[in-house]
Amino acid sequence: MIDFRPILFIIGILLATLAIGMTVPALVDLYYGHPDWLVFSAASAVSLFIGGALVMMNRTEKLRMTSRQAFILTTASWLVLTAVSALPFAFSDMNMSYTDAFFEAMSGISTTGSTVMVGLDTAPPGILLWRALLQWLGGIGIIVMAIAVMPMLRVGGMQLFRMENSDKSDKAFPRATQIAMGIFTLYVVFTIIWSFLLWWAGMSVFDAIAHAMTTIATGGFSTKDASIGYYDNPLIDVIITLGMTTGALPFLLYLQSLRGQPFALFRDSQVRWFATIAITIILGVALWHSEVNNVGFLTALRFSSFNIISVMTGTGYATTDYGLWGAFAVSVFFFVMFIGGCAGSTTCGVKIFRLQVLYEIAKIQLNHMLRPHGVFIAYYNRKPLTEDVTESVLSFFFLFVFCFVVLAAGLGAMGLDFITAISSAGTAIANVGPGLGPIVGPSGNFATLPDGAKWMMSIGMLIGRLEVFTVLILLSPDFWRD
Amino acid sequence: MIDFRPILFIIGILLATLAIGMTVPALVDLYYGHPDWLVFSAASAVSLFIGGALVMMNRTEKLRMTSRQAFILTTASWLVLTAVSALPFAFSDMNMSYTDAFFEAMSGISTTGSTVMVGLDTAPPGILLWRALLQWLGGIGIIVMAIAVMPMLRVGGMQLFRMENSDKSDKAFPRATQIAMGIFTLYVVFTIIWSFLLWWAGMSVFDAIAHAMTTIATGGFSTKDASIGYYDNPLIDVIITLGMTTGALPFLLYLQSLRGQPFALFRDSQVRWFATIAITIILGVALWHSEVNNVGFLTALRFSSFNIISVMTGTGYATTDYGLWGAFAVSVFFFVMFIGGCAGSTTCGVKIFRLQVLYEIAKIQLNHMLRPHGVFIAYYNRKPLTEDVTESVLSFFFLFVFCFVVLAAGLGAMGLDFITAISSAGTAIANVGPGLGPIVGPSGNFATLPDGAKWMMSIGMLIGRLEVFTVLILLSPDFWRD
Repeated sequence: MIDFRPILFIIGILLATLAIGMTVPALVDLYYGHPDWLVFSAASAVSLFIGGALVMMNRTEKLRMTSRQAFILTTASWLVLTAVSALPFAFSDMNMSYTDAFFEAMSGISTTGSTVMVGLDTAPPGILLWRALLQWLGGIGIIVMAIAVMPMLRVGGMQLFRMENSDKSDKAFPRATQIAMGIFTLYVVFTIIWSFLLWWAGMSVFDAIAHAMTTIATGGFSTKDASIGYYDNPLIDVIITLGMTTGALPFLLYLQSLRGQPFALFRDSQVRWFATIAITIILGVALWHSEVNNVGFLTALRFSSFNIISVMTGTGYATTDYGLWGAFAVSVFFFVMFIGGCAGSTTCGVKIFRLQVLYEIAKIQLNHMLRPHGVFIAYYNRKPLTEDVTESVLSFFFLFVFCFVVLAAGLGAMGLDFITAISSAGTAIANVGPGLGPIVGPSGNFATLPDGAKWMMSIGMLIGRLEVFTVLILLSPDFWRD
Repeated sequence: MIDFRPILFIIGILLATLAIGMTVPALVDLYYGHPDWLVFSAASAVSLFIGGALVMMNRTEKLRMTSRQAFILTTASWLVLTAVSALPFAFSDMNMSYTDAFFEAMSGISTTGSTVMVGLDTAPPGILLWRALLQWLGGIGIIVMAIAVMPMLRVGGMQLFRMENSDKSDKAFPRATQIAMGIFTLYVVFTIIWSFLLWWAGMSVFDAIAHAMTTIATGGFSTKDASIGYYDNPLIDVIITLGMTTGALPFLLYLQSLRGQPFALFRDSQVRWFATIAITIILGVALWHSEVNNVGFLTALRFSSFNIISVMTGTGYATTDYGLWGAFAVSVFFFVMFIGGCAGSTTCGVKIFRLQVLYEIAKIQLNHMLRPHGVFIAYYNRKPLTEDVTESVLSFFFLFVFCFVVLAAGLGAMGLDFITAISSAGTAIANVGPGLGPIVGPSGNFATLPDGAKWMMSIGMLIGRLEVFTVLILLSPDFWRD
């Protein structure tokens, strides 16, 4: 029998926190005199009530969890928080169906950035802030999970990032709390810096804060229908590009850099790979774009760097409709969606460290074929890789592709055309934001998709955000046995 | 230093064999009074001359090869044979450029079935027979390689199909020759049976023989522009569907069935998976097609079973333009391309046994996450899988996807639109035949693609046909070192 009390207890605490979060848009709407403040207050009360009740009823001494409980907690908390976060959307002035509200909330909390809302430019401030806040909370949530939970649960090779001593949780606990606090502080500081920078570059205070939150979280919700293209300001483009990159690197390394290892960031092979891949693709697309579409190279570079970084890190802002750049760009943007950023960042996708591990394994495999009796060892960041890690990463890759295929076929069954179906599946599972093609591309949105497709995509976002295994393991009969 | 003599010696023998093959279309053109008989005779003479010279100059005592030599031989022989097989296309009445001729020859030898030729219905008989013959030779070539070469070279998990004693090649040699002869005989018998069946169902003798050859080889070249749709004959559809399935099952099992183990075929888990996957998809698409497009269920089933089996086994015939069945069908056909048939058959793609291994590994991985200290063993056909095999299969999957992505992006760079680029990449690397969309879909062909795209696709077909590793290993600097 699984003891659900600690699970419900923690979900209760998270709901209470969410209730506090909801007071922010409530206050903002009150300040701007918009009636939606009532909706947020009511939703906050509901969230606090359910959360409080769960905490009361499940108060328990032992908070140490088995990995089975941790798996249930991870998926369940993400689902419950999404369901409750959807309430303000459903009851606000925007008149959204619950399907749309759930999709928007999941897209927010998972830092995807796909939207079903049209008319953002005239939407009430509370709703706009709520969207930004959801991504911001989702972003810090996933960093903490990636550092504290995933490595313990050995999800898709994340055991690579297990901290020493983290097995003996008693001793490690103070250290883990300390690290979590450090990262949270850093996250807040980054958000403040980028708010300031964006305001300085010309955004209104409100827009600057909202975009700073969704930039650092590599979320991609904007307060404008035209996304960052609305501002048409090269300075803003550069600031946000740097912000998305900051959000895509391992946050632990920032802490180390601040604590006496100033070059930790540059010595990390994951960061170097990220930079190499990003720069190669950006230059390639810029050259091609300037050549084929007769655009000046610097202009091409500006748009290429912003949009490639946006899609690669899974942020999902756009400054132009790169779907119109021609065939090559469309194929490249499609595949770039899946790359993602570094482990321990706010990004999703396959992630750089997995590509490194896959590359190492393929290299070893080729060597092994040449010299069947030779001994070859795969390395990551100068440390040998255990079989446990390599098999996890390889299985992750397979299951990631498998889920993508099933989702794409499912969306096809909902009547979506080929490019819409497969790019929507990709954008959901890699938590990017826009898809490709005229309907869901960077200048379109997901409003017109059938409800079934929206639910499928919501599940896709959840699976992608929680690194596939965490959700799929709940579907295994073995999980619930004994 | 690598000793190239045994490699060139064997290539010489293969070229001499090809020269004999070329006399068949020469005789047929002579019989029908078509001047192309001169082209085939000349090409045959060239092939015989080069082959003979290579044999003379590289005669060597020791034919035992290192695995390095075997890798070079595999890729080099495939390339040289394609280059020479292209000659009749280039110099025939069809007036094809050498690019087109090479593409057509590679598509033939690799049993892909993509074509750049238009006007097959009025093409000279020699050329039509040559296309069929190339696929037929490519088909038996790949079966022999899959049984005799790939397992020794440990390509992508093929070591799973190593025969006992095959390490000690002296003892095993007589047995291997015996098996190869058995399989060749079976291949000829199947071809004769299907020729007869197709003739009996209404095809002309010439068409029946040509289609029997490309059916058993799961190749897909037809003698008609409209492919099998030209005949519009349910009986022919059924006969060819059975033929493609026959070509997609492990040929070794047929031998075993004939030699006192009548149920070998049905006891094999790979065959069962193949049947389950195929039937599920066929029924799903048939139901959907009959529901959405208002087609009677039996008609839907007829077209669904023929075309799904054709794409899944990588044959590539079509009886209708399933690209017009709607969004769901297009997505499904896209992904079905990659499945392939069984190991030791004429099919390409990821192949069923790899899907089985990937499934087993994913299952183990989930169990392992639940019980980190448990011991779990993956099985294939009731035998435990070694780490060697699982890593090979997983790396194969990654490299297969990687090559597909690079090829698709490359085709995009050549100016192909999204669906044309990614379906052409898929169809090339999985050796299927038709792509998707209005240009390269089942009612289009590859004639209008730019030359660069045709060369890229030719390389893609080669990589897919030789199980990825065999070609990629030649690109590794380590391979050529020391």
